[in-house]
Amino acid sequence: MNVEYINPFLEATMNVLKTMAFIESKTGKPSLKKGKEAYGDVSGIIGLTGATEGSLSVTFTQPCIEQILTSMFGEPVNGITDEVKDAVGEITNMISGDARRVLSEKGISLNAAIPTIVAGPNHSITHLAKGPTIVIPFSTEAGSFTVEVSLND
Amino acid sequence: MNVEYINPFLEATMNVLKTMAFIESKTGKPSLKKGKEAYGDVSGIIGLTGATEGSLSVTFTQPCIEQILTSMFGEPVNGITDEVKDAVGEITNMISGDARRVLSEKGISLNAAIPTIVAGPNHSITHLAKGPTIVIPFSTEAGSFTVEVSLND
Repeated sequence: MNVEYINPFLEATMNVLKTMAFIESKTGKPSLKKGKEAYGDVSGIIGLTGATEGSLSVTFTQPCIEQILTSMFGEPVNGITDEVKDAVGEITNMISGDARRVLSEKGISLNAAIPTIVAGPNHSITHLAKGPTIVIPFSTEAGSFTVEVSLND
Repeated sequence: MNVEYINPFLEATMNVLKTMAFIESKTGKPSLKKGKEAYGDVSGIIGLTGATEGSLSVTFTQPCIEQILTSMFGEPVNGITDEVKDAVGEITNMISGDARRVLSEKGISLNAAIPTIVAGPNHSITHLAKGPTIVIPFSTEAGSFTVEVSLND
């Protein structure tokens, strides 16, 4: 997977969290996923097609998404409700959209499918694109979450 | 969601299970998902773009996928291993491919992204396409599994 594909997803994630939830996030060092999987309680997953194919996932622990959405909505959010799932879908869509806009300016045009949300304690995501899966860890004052991207090339 | 979109997914699922795993599956009555969610232990998820947009998921309980893959591989399969995840991805791809071939013959051309696999006890999937989510329950001698399809129209 071309390294120039990584930064747009990393920056899109920080932008979206800051713009939507007024939350500053710090990124850890992106790494190749090697079986040490990221686990979380709610994930947004989006398929990518076009110049290449692959998938993007954003996985939050429950305390982390509760605090992010409490900040975003301005009222307490508890539990993985339908409203939380919709918001995770929206965050995933916005990260995908922002990253694809930047990639498009570099001549790499990707289309996104509609996000799918997974809810369940301590689940993990596996991406099956031909390239490696890049894991980007984020930390916020609300806890940590993980963005994973995998593309065919 | 157009009802003519449902049958190709239903028939593709039965075909794939029969062809790959020599397992006959029976389908229950498809229904609209209304909060009563299908839960399972491993899912394949695939985004769909093209004539419309949406997503497809195939969710198995652990005993069900273990028995299906034991039949497919001809040797005992235990646990949600990497090999099981790959096989779930392959099954999801084949269901998507077979259904899209039939839909294409009806003039409805859909592209599929690369499948993503979710592993975790008792997780649920939420589809965010604009149309309803159709839930198709299947039963086999190996237990039950669920196919869900949601499209924008």
